[in-house]
Amino acid sequence: MKYCSQCRADITWAIPAGDNRHRNMCTACDIIFYDNPRIVAGTLPVYQSKILLCKRAISPRKGYWTLPAGFMENGESTEHAALRETQEEANATVKLNGLYSVITVPHISQVHMFFLAELPTPEYSSGEESLEVELFSPEDIPWDEIAFPTVTETLRLFLANQPGPHVFNITPDMAIDAGHD
Amino acid sequence: MKYCSQCRADITWAIPAGDNRHRNMCTACDIIFYDNPRIVAGTLPVYQSKILLCKRAISPRKGYWTLPAGFMENGESTEHAALRETQEEANATVKLNGLYSVITVPHISQVHMFFLAELPTPEYSSGEESLEVELFSPEDIPWDEIAFPTVTETLRLFLANQPGPHVFNITPDMAIDAGHD
Repeated sequence: MKYCSQCRADITWAIPAGDNRHRNMCTACDIIFYDNPRIVAGTLPVYQSKILLCKRAISPRKGYWTLPAGFMENGESTEHAALRETQEEANATVKLNGLYSVITVPHISQVHMFFLAELPTPEYSSGEESLEVELFSPEDIPWDEIAFPTVTETLRLFLANQPGPHVFNITPDMAIDAGHD
Repeated sequence: MKYCSQCRADITWAIPAGDNRHRNMCTACDIIFYDNPRIVAGTLPVYQSKILLCKRAISPRKGYWTLPAGFMENGESTEHAALRETQEEANATVKLNGLYSVITVPHISQVHMFFLAELPTPEYSSGEESLEVELFSPEDIPWDEIAFPTVTETLRLFLANQPGPHVFNITPDMAIDAGHD
């Protein structure tokens, strides 16, 4: 951030009065620009013990497999975001069965929330952001080709029959080179 | 948002190629500025069956009672944000006992997350954003003076012994005039 989006003046990186963190502040009109973590919402869709995964058609981690998920938008609920992303990425209409994981990734300022979901019928196809969409038996999960550690951990807990919700963090040493853009 | 924070050109409100939502876009350098929901993290601190509430010293809802909570910051976890806010608003050091409520407030694009917490000793005082901090017996909760509906609902569920976590939404008709700034 270089210039004020309200008055075009220069931005400075400083601690506002009464605050204890650096923020982007306008040098002319004194507006403070806050930047906060973003929520990624998604589902773990199950059809007859198989799990629906999407092969990513876009960066980051193009060509790797993920659970359907994406950034929550203003004005929607976490559940709505999870259902919408599942529809957009896999053309799949699922029924939610509860929040399963809430995983903070502090080094990229994201919170990933996955809901368990039932895929009532095996109807799905690749959305614009997916190269392929496929149902995987537990023994066939492509562990070495999973896009993000939050997906790996969510799948691992689910397949170990660990009842959720699970609330934890992913630290940089657990992270692969994903999610930075 | 009027001007591009990278190049000072005019901003337009339009749907980017490949997207389906209006975004703030630069008319010169084509940067897209995304705006996403923010997380408010807090605790429900309990000491010997009493609940710690803070009377707000700042807008919105100055003078009303709330659970200690505030905006999650970049680089921290949800738990860290909840503990930090409890320290800042009530000078109270608590131990977290699990995620209890995840409440989306779509009309203000916020997700409020409250963790159950134990206050090991009755040590607390008003932080900068609180006028008073006080332990309330369940029968003394000032229901008519609670700052935000997410706090009311979280307290109500807890006092009804409903095991969490609870994931739901607050709609505008349930909301009082809070949280809009």
